Amino acid sequence: MIDTITFTQDLIRCPSVTPKDEGVFDLLQGALEKLGFTCHRLPFQEDGTERVENLYARIGTQAPNFCFAGHLDVVPVGDLAGWQYDPFGGEIHEGRLYGRGSADMKGAVAAFVEAVQNFLQAQGDTLSGSISFLITGDEEGPAINGTKKVLQWMEEQGEIMDHCLVGEPTNPQCMGEMMKVGRRGSINSVLTVHGTQGHVAYPHRADNPLPRLVKMLDALIAEPLDTGNEFFDPSSLSLTTIDCGNEVENVIPAQATAKFNIRYNNIHTGASLEEWIRKTLDEVDTNYTLKTRISGESFMSPQDILTDLIASATEKVTGVAPERSTSGGTSDARFITHSCTVAEFGLVGQTMHKVDENVKVEDLTNLSKIYQAILEDYFKEAS
Amino acid sequence: MIDTITFTQDLIRCPSVTPKDEGVFDLLQGALEKLGFTCHRLPFQEDGTERVENLYARIGTQAPNFCFAGHLDVVPVGDLAGWQYDPFGGEIHEGRLYGRGSADMKGAVAAFVEAVQNFLQAQGDTLSGSISFLITGDEEGPAINGTKKVLQWMEEQGEIMDHCLVGEPTNPQCMGEMMKVGRRGSINSVLTVHGTQGHVAYPHRADNPLPRLVKMLDALIAEPLDTGNEFFDPSSLSLTTIDCGNEVENVIPAQATAKFNIRYNNIHTGASLEEWIRKTLDEVDTNYTLKTRISGESFMSPQDILTDLIASATEKVTGVAPERSTSGGTSDARFITHSCTVAEFGLVGQTMHKVDENVKVEDLTNLSKIYQAILEDYFKEAS
Ligand SMILES: [Zn+2]
Ligand SMILES: [Zn+2]
Repeated sequence: MIDTITFTQDLIRCPSVTPKDEGVFDLLQGALEKLGFTCHRLPFQEDGTERVENLYARIGTQAPNFCFAGHLDVVPVGDLAGWQYDPFGGEIHEGRLYGRGSADMKGAVAAFVEAVQNFLQAQGDTLSGSISFLITGDEEGPAINGTKKVLQWMEEQGEIMDHCLVGEPTNPQCMGEMMKVGRRGSINSVLTVHGTQGHVAYPHRADNPLPRLVKMLDALIAEPLDTGNEFFDPSSLSLTTIDCGNEVENVIPAQATAKFNIRYNNIHTGASLEEWIRKTLDEVDTNYTLKTRISGESFMSPQDILTDLIASATEKVTGVAPERSTSGGTSDARFITHSCTVAEFGLVGQTMHKVDENVKVEDLTNLSKIYQAILEDYFKEAS
Repeated sequence: MIDTITFTQDLIRCPSVTPKDEGVFDLLQGALEKLGFTCHRLPFQEDGTERVENLYARIGTQAPNFCFAGHLDVVPVGDLAGWQYDPFGGEIHEGRLYGRGSADMKGAVAAFVEAVQNFLQAQGDTLSGSISFLITGDEEGPAINGTKKVLQWMEEQGEIMDHCLVGEPTNPQCMGEMMKVGRRGSINSVLTVHGTQGHVAYPHRADNPLPRLVKMLDALIAEPLDTGNEFFDPSSLSLTTIDCGNEVENVIPAQATAKFNIRYNNIHTGASLEEWIRKTLDEVDTNYTLKTRISGESFMSPQDILTDLIASATEKVTGVAPERSTSGGTSDARFITHSCTVAEFGLVGQTMHKVDENVKVEDLTNLSKIYQAILEDYFKEAS
């Protein structure tokens, strides 16, 4: 019998810093096989990247297929001296379970397993549908050999998910306050403005790229991109660096570079933003180079049964009705949204990626109860 | 007997790259003593700087005192492989004399000496005034232990110059086209804008210094500082670098720095510009640090006998009437202007500070003739 707390500790004790798995996938696979799941280990490796472990597991053959998604890799320990407790110890102190991945998101994966176990036990043999797990070891890394490739494999196999719940830590402060029903997109730009070097005493013989760069950036930040909408915060453009590296105080430099990131809502796409950036720059000058990289389009899940079930199950267990939010950074949900309705709900993320990452033991138990309640209602509705 | 060409070669063969003198001051002192000058060697060294050689020499005790000023130090060779001829060889090829310092400005110092020699010979014992030399070895370096300190020493000694001619290369393309009757001032500024680091997904929790820096720089470059006047080109503000050094694309940086240089005419002073900069910045935001350094105030010599004599002597020898210009970089004239009327006239500067620095042999001879004609007319008017 799996219980969420002990299983979280077991998972934490495998130091699975991306791209290492350190036995953590074997642990999960063993637990799922005992529950009757068919497991597919899906290691992927692209040229020039490191091999990463992934797992797709399913019980049942019928539709609907309810999928739990998440990751078993963790970010590095960081400043080890800053940790009060062993980052891979899984120790419990004063009602809190400590360790790298406790919040993000081994605790949620453990809660998935106990929830499924208890649900299946209560259900007997009468599951009218399927439950599946889509677990990657490459969420915290470059995300090249992870969820994206598992979804490709699933498509090739004809594996269809109907709804997917990602267990990322979605609650800012306390359990139950927030689910994520979408995410903003993110586009990174590198702008290099070209000119001609010269001496400051003869500026007319040079072509200084810096005033043009200043005008371009000023044009980009002049107006807010939008004011947001019912579901999304306003999009935001952040200048992240400007660099020229000219150390000679009487020389006009030949070029300068600025970088900026836009977090954008569903009013835009990466393509529409790139077009807007180029148009805005062109109005100042065209002697520049622009490179853009979209790391994820914005998306929003329809408000269907999945988000309703998360809301009602969470309120039932915690007494709190979770907000439907689209705030924060990106997650693998950006890939899954192309396959089925996806929403995210997990633990409290306050300490994620920090020293002494921890979760309340009580939250782990509650999260498992919430996941179990979601399964019960989902298959009640489905049958 | 000194002739300008041979003496230029002798001076070039001393590799007197600032702060080294390599015997070049002994050569000059020897030549001047033969002509009857009283020489004062004035080596200066401030704490943390290198010792630099200087020379003040004078013949005569009466007023007016006509002073030739200049430097015997040279800039480094730079890319030696790029030189066709030995930079310290003083070789003559096809009517041109090659070597570091040939144009800037050992050739002019040699022309001073021949001009004075020929003038004194023609004059006999009847010099109704004085001729002096103010020669430094720290013009191309930091200019701390050079002309500035010699002028202090002269003041302490009660040494008075009435007019001073600086022999810097003032002609852009061909001999006789330009004298300098003033120079623009120069002020360097370092602007650091402060903020608070954060994540691009949560820009409201950070305080990005970059948009404020962009707005500040945009305000500084929005309008021309002035449109110039009868004597001066418009002042110019050149942004020389912007640096932030943030390598993490999803992080908002904590601070960013911009540097800019203003070359300003006599409409402004360094102090008035600093006040204008601070006022302009303050209108955007006050969370910044600004450091300024004035490397020379703008100045302009009165259009008196000195510039008239330079013009008439030049036209007499070359057939070209020189323009009275205030363009270009700074020179030691910025210090001398506080002591007496100063103007600059020398060789063609096209190759100065470059590989294969050279002057036309004919220009050297003509320059000496011009300096001699100036002396003749000056003391004719004085007597
Ligand atoms: Zn995560
Ligand atoms: Zn010079």
